[in-house]
Formats: sequence, C-alpha cells, structure tokens
Amino acid sequence: ARPRVGYFYSGKTGNQLLGEHIRKLSVRDRKSIPVVCREDTSVYDAICTMFLEDVGTLFVLKENGILVGVVSRKDLLKSSMGNQDLQSIPVGVVMTRMPNIITCHPEESLLSAASKLIGNQVDALPVVKEETDGLEVVGRITKTTITKAFVELGEGASV
Amino acid sequence: ARPRVGYFYSGKTGNQLLGEHIRKLSVRDRKSIPVVCREDTSVYDAICTMFLEDVGTLFVLKENGILVGVVSRKDLLKSSMGNQDLQSIPVGVVMTRMPNIITCHPEESLLSAASKLIGNQVDALPVVKEETDGLEVVGRITKTTITKAFVELGEGASV
Repeated sequence: ARPRVGYFYSGKTGNQLLGEHIRKLSVRDRKSIPVVCREDTSVYDAICTMFLEDVGTLFVLKENGILVGVVSRKDLLKSSMGNQDLQSIPVGVVMTRMPNIITCHPEESLLSAASKLIGNQVDALPVVKEETDGLEVVGRITKTTITKAFVELGEGASV
Repeated sequence: ARPRVGYFYSGKTGNQLLGEHIRKLSVRDRKSIPVVCREDTSVYDAICTMFLEDVGTLFVLKENGILVGVVSRKDLLKSSMGNQDLQSIPVGVVMTRMPNIITCHPEESLLSAASKLIGNQVDALPVVKEETDGLEVVGRITKTTITKAFVELGEGASV
C-alpha cells in the first residue's frame, strides 16, 4: 500500500522541476512597453528617441500601426560610420524589414522568447498580435527582461 | 515508522529550489572572452572592433593590461551624433573611466553579476582579478550570458 503522506515522488529530477517552473513564466506577464517610430523618421531622430526613451531597439510602424521593421542600436551605429548626414537618412533604409523579423506572442512562454533572442542573435523581440492587415505591436521582450526574471527567480521571489 | 523510500520531502517549495539552483551558478563557469582596446584607439576603430568581434562593449586597457575604462555601443552611438570625425576622437574621451566601473569577480555568483547588470543599468561587466597595480580583466559577463543561462535552466539542461 502507498504510504499515507501528503506528497508523492513525481519521478522528476530537480532540474526538470526547475525547468517546469521557468516554463510557467509568460511573455504577457513580463513584456514592457514598445517604443516606436515611422519609416521616414531620420536616423538622427531615431538615435535621439533611443536615448530619450532609454531603449536599444525601436519598432517601426506604418500609419495604421502595423509593424514594418525593427531598428537596433547596432543598425544605427553602422549607419553612423559612413560620414553621412544622419538627418537625411530615413530609418527605412537601415532597419530590418518584414518578413525578416523575429516576433513573439503574448501567450508564448518567456523561455521560448528567450530562446529566440539567443538563437537569432537579437537584443529585442516585438510582442505582436495578428490583425487582418498585418502584425500589431503590443509589447517588447529584451535581454533585460530575461535578466530581470533570472534575478527574481534567483532571489526566490514569487514570479 | 518512516516509509522506506529513497527520497524525503525537504519542505522547500519549487521557488526555493529554483533560487538555490540559480545561486550555485558562478561567474567563473559562465564568463566569455573579453574584447579590449587601448585608450588612444579611435572611436571609428572601436566601432569596427565591435562589429568584427560581435560584442556590445569593449574594455579599455593600459599597456600593462590594467583596466582603465569601459566603452559601450551606447557611448559610441552618442559620440557619432555630433558630426565629428570619428577617426580623430579617441575612445578615452567617450568611455566610462575607473573608478566608476561596475565589475565582478570569478568567484562571484552569476546571480550577483546579473543583479549588478540590472541595478546599474549596464549591458556588460568586466570579470576582474586584483593585481598590485590595478584590475586585470579575465572575462566578460553580459545580458546575453544571463539569457543563455536562463534558457538552459528552462530547457532542463544540467547547468
């Protein structure tokens, strides 16, 4: 007969349990606010927005709010090397354009999003919802998001 | 009598176990190779090094290998906004200088390093050893390091 105790051995190792715990964290609960610009914003203004908003990646939207591109600090740094007038180059020239953008969904696990950041060597993912005319951006997941979650898990906070 | 089984309830929650597991990870086991330059390297050459080595932060060393500064993609992007000749500005002008540099030690926990990254809003920490004439750089911890550890923990890999 099974001993009458209030717990049972699940057959799982400690590592498996940890994995399960991490997999419960969701993009929805962890995403931060997206910072956006237009395709015709100048590289100069995009750099200013990055500093003012203190982010490393901007999402580039069409007038109807649909995602068309992503521009990173790295893209802007590269374009600033060429001795060009940064006020005259639009973000649309230097950004990564749809459909080559790695995205995530609010329902996705934070682990899956973290795995995309590493696997695709990007610093940020737009959190998107599918609309009839494209993807609407509802949030942002970055390596900072993941590092914060790691710290909270390590400190044993209930996350 | 206690049932004869090969396991015991430790009284710890999943959160506590996860926290303990994370706290065991060390900077020594996780650090990556530091990418460095000199104080008189031009901003232009520093940007090139960043792209060639695919890093977001360079550590600036004296001739004897001692840490004098840290320069980030953000610092270089800021200096490239001013319509200046990037070849004529030395890194020493735009870098963060000792003693205002947040560092970590090989013996430190990865959690402590992650906490410094978040608390000080920096993307990378030099891993340093104390020498008689200053700090020697022996590695690099970034938000990418932490994100990779998070993914491995979540996937249940033995880390």
